[in-house]
Amino acid sequence: MEKVIVTFYPDQKKVELPRGETLLFAARSAGIPVDASCGGEGICGKCRMIVREGHVNMAPTALLSRDEIRKSLVLACISNVDSDCSVEIPQDSRVGEIQALPGEGHSEKITGLEKLEKEISYPFSPLCEKIFLELPPPSLNDSMSDLSRLVRGIREHHDNFSINISLYNISRLPALLRGSEWKVTAAAGNCNGNIEVIDIEEGDCSGRNYGAAVDIGTTTIAVSVVDLARNGIVETRAAYNPQASFGADVISRIIYAGKNGGLEQLQRVVSGAINRLISSICSENGISIHDVTCVVAAGNTTMMHLLLKLDPSYIRREPYIPVAAELPPVHAMEAGIFINPRGLLRCVPGVASYVGGDITSGVIASGLADSDEISFLMDIGTNGEVVLGCKDWLMCCSCSAGPAFEGGGIKCGMRASAGAIQEIKIDNGDISYRVIGDVKPRGICGSGLIDLVAGMMRNGLVNRAGRFTEKAGDRLRSSDEGMEFVVVYAGETASGEDVVFTEIDMENLLRAKGAMYVGARFLFQKAGLSFNDLSKFYIGGGFGNYINLKNAVTIGLLPDIDMDKFQFIGNSSLTGARLCLKSRKAFERAGLTARMMTNFELSVEPGFMNEFTSALFLPHTESDLFPNVLKELGWK
Amino acid sequence: MEKVIVTFYPDQKKVELPRGETLLFAARSAGIPVDASCGGEGICGKCRMIVREGHVNMAPTALLSRDEIRKSLVLACISNVDSDCSVEIPQDSRVGEIQALPGEGHSEKITGLEKLEKEISYPFSPLCEKIFLELPPPSLNDSMSDLSRLVRGIREHHDNFSINISLYNISRLPALLRGSEWKVTAAAGNCNGNIEVIDIEEGDCSGRNYGAAVDIGTTTIAVSVVDLARNGIVETRAAYNPQASFGADVISRIIYAGKNGGLEQLQRVVSGAINRLISSICSENGISIHDVTCVVAAGNTTMMHLLLKLDPSYIRREPYIPVAAELPPVHAMEAGIFINPRGLLRCVPGVASYVGGDITSGVIASGLADSDEISFLMDIGTNGEVVLGCKDWLMCCSCSAGPAFEGGGIKCGMRASAGAIQEIKIDNGDISYRVIGDVKPRGICGSGLIDLVAGMMRNGLVNRAGRFTEKAGDRLRSSDEGMEFVVVYAGETASGEDVVFTEIDMENLLRAKGAMYVGARFLFQKAGLSFNDLSKFYIGGGFGNYINLKNAVTIGLLPDIDMDKFQFIGNSSLTGARLCLKSRKAFERAGLTARMMTNFELSVEPGFMNEFTSALFLPHTESDLFPNVLKELGWK
Repeated sequence: MEKVIVTFYPDQKKVELPRGETLLFAARSAGIPVDASCGGEGICGKCRMIVREGHVNMAPTALLSRDEIRKSLVLACISNVDSDCSVEIPQDSRVGEIQALPGEGHSEKITGLEKLEKEISYPFSPLCEKIFLELPPPSLNDSMSDLSRLVRGIREHHDNFSINISLYNISRLPALLRGSEWKVTAAAGNCNGNIEVIDIEEGDCSGRNYGAAVDIGTTTIAVSVVDLARNGIVETRAAYNPQASFGADVISRIIYAGKNGGLEQLQRVVSGAINRLISSICSENGISIHDVTCVVAAGNTTMMHLLLKLDPSYIRREPYIPVAAELPPVHAMEAGIFINPRGLLRCVPGVASYVGGDITSGVIASGLADSDEISFLMDIGTNGEVVLGCKDWLMCCSCSAGPAFEGGGIKCGMRASAGAIQEIKIDNGDISYRVIGDVKPRGICGSGLIDLVAGMMRNGLVNRAGRFTEKAGDRLRSSDEGMEFVVVYAGETASGEDVVFTEIDMENLLRAKGAMYVGARFLFQKAGLSFNDLSKFYIGGGFGNYINLKNAVTIGLLPDIDMDKFQFIGNSSLTGARLCLKSRKAFERAGLTARMMTNFELSVEPGFMNEFTSALFLPHTESDLFPNVLKELGWK
Repeated sequence: MEKVIVTFYPDQKKVELPRGETLLFAARSAGIPVDASCGGEGICGKCRMIVREGHVNMAPTALLSRDEIRKSLVLACISNVDSDCSVEIPQDSRVGEIQALPGEGHSEKITGLEKLEKEISYPFSPLCEKIFLELPPPSLNDSMSDLSRLVRGIREHHDNFSINISLYNISRLPALLRGSEWKVTAAAGNCNGNIEVIDIEEGDCSGRNYGAAVDIGTTTIAVSVVDLARNGIVETRAAYNPQASFGADVISRIIYAGKNGGLEQLQRVVSGAINRLISSICSENGISIHDVTCVVAAGNTTMMHLLLKLDPSYIRREPYIPVAAELPPVHAMEAGIFINPRGLLRCVPGVASYVGGDITSGVIASGLADSDEISFLMDIGTNGEVVLGCKDWLMCCSCSAGPAFEGGGIKCGMRASAGAIQEIKIDNGDISYRVIGDVKPRGICGSGLIDLVAGMMRNGLVNRAGRFTEKAGDRLRSSDEGMEFVVVYAGETASGEDVVFTEIDMENLLRAKGAMYVGARFLFQKAGLSFNDLSKFYIGGGFGNYINLKNAVTIGLLPDIDMDKFQFIGNSSLTGARLCLKSRKAFERAGLTARMMTNFELSVEPGFMNEFTSALFLPHTESDLFPNVLKELGWK
């Protein structure tokens, strides 16, 4: 097979590949994470590249204008390399490390989460602990075996557990015990009520014990390294999930996983990203990776399948069956996660295919399942999930919100990273905005989109059906794809092109906010409750933290209730995972919680389509659901 | 390094090795099991070979006569190969498969054991079982995960257990369950009260479930393959333990294990021998090795260390500490045993360094620990062990009997294989004997030695101190090594040389029988009991089965009690392992038994040496201990 060479700029990375392969394949081979939200199906138009030299054959597409094509722009996923090429990958086409987290403006919010974590009282009893043992040396009167002597020592700390130890660790005992004069440290992990001896070290190493809490989001991966000897957080870092270059949402990843080698590839990139986060935190804080004894991971059910290389294909086929929602303890190594070679990986149990361990984790983090009062949790992410209940009962369902809040399916949409418009205000036609990272705007992220639509509503620039009105004036114009509203003119933007919001964008956003609202309303109806019966309305998800509540109510994403009842809990999946890492009781509670949650499959519920259609309006067709909003707007 | 080639006959096996290596090394490299009881130290004189061509440098030795040396005989362990050689290995120098078991005369005895096994009532509940599950296919109303569905199915059979399943088996679920229309068979092993799912197969395979019970003796390995679906024995086979070419007793093996690569080598040969026995039984009975789901192994503590590659060196150093006496469940593969790739290996728990799982197994097989009445178990092997007690208490100790009963340290001694004199009668100076395998005699095995000494006592050919008397007549002669008694003249033997019994042989035999007797007497004294308080005196060990009880009492090996109380229980280690394989209750009982046994370290007990010295006489210095023997012999 003929080979060609592609050189990527500005990276200056060269890669050799068979002639006829796609540019997207080439970029992946070169290890450059490219945004391909649709999974390389030629649908999302995110994987734009500029061919500087050489020749590629691109399939016809409506996602590039004639002008763009003349400027040598191509969509990498539908462009087959025909000769040696030099290709530039613009910043906008890349997915990379999250620069904003946890430095800059975001660190304050992270601290807020840690505060939340401290309010929730689970006893400190790490999932894996290091126990220093001063064993009595053997004698003719105390001649028990090395193994029994160790077990006897551990039992003085944990009487009620059965103790498991691998043959490998048993075989190390005679030299270790005698070499340390019978003073050793046992790293003991909790596995469903059994103790597993993970490691044995000479001398007293009980002060060096760390764990990693991992939230695997479809878009973002966040890792906290926790000091399990002193009950403190070492550091929290986040990065984009590199699986994004194989598809923005779980469905496109599941499809990709079904391709030859796809599952292995998705597994490799996600474990790689987790490893980079853990090891960068450890190395910069002087922690040996060997002293990280366990990982607690929370994520949606598809993410957990991909991490553990389990076939996710039945998740998307009716009746939507996962391979496993509650996973047994495994060795982190089995999932390609590098910590202590015999360290454990515990996955926070999930409920069903579309209600994963991230939600269980959120329930733990919010304290919802520990309260006598009725509370509600809405997790806004690429997929949305809602939970209603109290300590006696819990109901949940997932809402196919789609990726609009993450910038997916929105022409100038983007994630909440540098260059994203995060806040928008409209005052008598004047638009002011705030951009992440103090740079020129590149696009609009979820919180900005909510502000934009609420602002347009207040200024009468849209009607209840979401159609732009004449009042939008000069900013309104028509394009090949219908009407569009110019948010920022070209002169102020990073790319030198207008940042716009189209009618199609509006439809996608309405579907997203409508899906979330319908899911919430469904659970209340099922429970025979009204929104006003609530004690607390928790908003989780990394994105949730940055939205303007009032605006979210205005557009009909959140219900029109007493604003004091809303509480941001940020990345509650990560907080919950951290709680589970630090407390066996919290992990046990997570298991009970997952088993106790009643899950509803919304799409098969009668009346769902009607409800959904009603929610596709601003704020909703049923006026009495949003009395305060309508009053403010002066709408009837 | 210069290489030379050694060709062994009659095997016609060629092996290339560095010039200067020993012939014993060459034979091992060629995979020919050679008898080297002393472990290659030039002491036992068993590894005789004949150098037909080429040159070897042999260190000086008194173990070969001048005549033998002129006939080109060498001791392989002290002969360094100097050039290409052709070397013959005589049959007597080899250790090989046991031809006599279970065919020929021995099968009757084996049947006897099976009878014993049936008398002991443990409920049939195999350590690993195959459960056929017809799972309901999932639906929107029953949407639990594949894993939970499987677990729910298993729980209908085992409600009280926690169920463990490997990530590997979880990952196979989606395809297996759907490929079999939700009808699968789970192979479920019992691991300390948990269920481990070993394998999952499509359709109903519950009828194909086998286990292997293994007795790893220092000298002999015996394997029973058991039909765990139908509760029957498929076949029992035995072979010599190929570790014998690295030393006859546990001490020499421990020393060998301490050499570079020694432990690995000992592990490899023992697992290889077990694999050959299992696979030969399976292949000849049409059983797939994949359907063998578990192995229960019993052996002395050193044998179990070597099987699991655990450092045995502290077993022989005061205070005699094993790495482990009770081992956790492991995968058979970890010990190099090839059955189902995820099949289990359970080791019958031992008590201490010199009272291993073979003894626990014997206690289970005899029913001693289930009885209200006080019984005694004597296991006669290379190492001897004794147990006294009932269901409420158990005491044990080991007796350093040495290898005399296995033919070790006896000039014309040999194991109970073809050519061994098994029975001897002396009538007025006439000696009649019976040889195993209906061939010319090659030597004398343990039962023959007991008969010989008892016969000599009855005919006045030895005195109470074990010295040959004048009455021995022509058969008595002096040699370089002191006096010797000709048992069979050269004309009748296989080798064409006299089969003799020397004064040194007598000393070794006295030490062996004395050690066993002292151990037994010690436990009775410790318990404040006399031999006559016994309800049953069980005699175990493969060798025990063939001895003449009356003669064993006569020489003072067994106490002088009512003969009806003696009961042979044969290879009770194998029987017990089989019981554990077939019944979880039996295995649990073995664990409790091991933990409940009080072990005494005989050598450090005050008065031991006096007791031992008194027992080095025929039958004993204390006349009133053997009233019936003395009366019959007319001795005072």
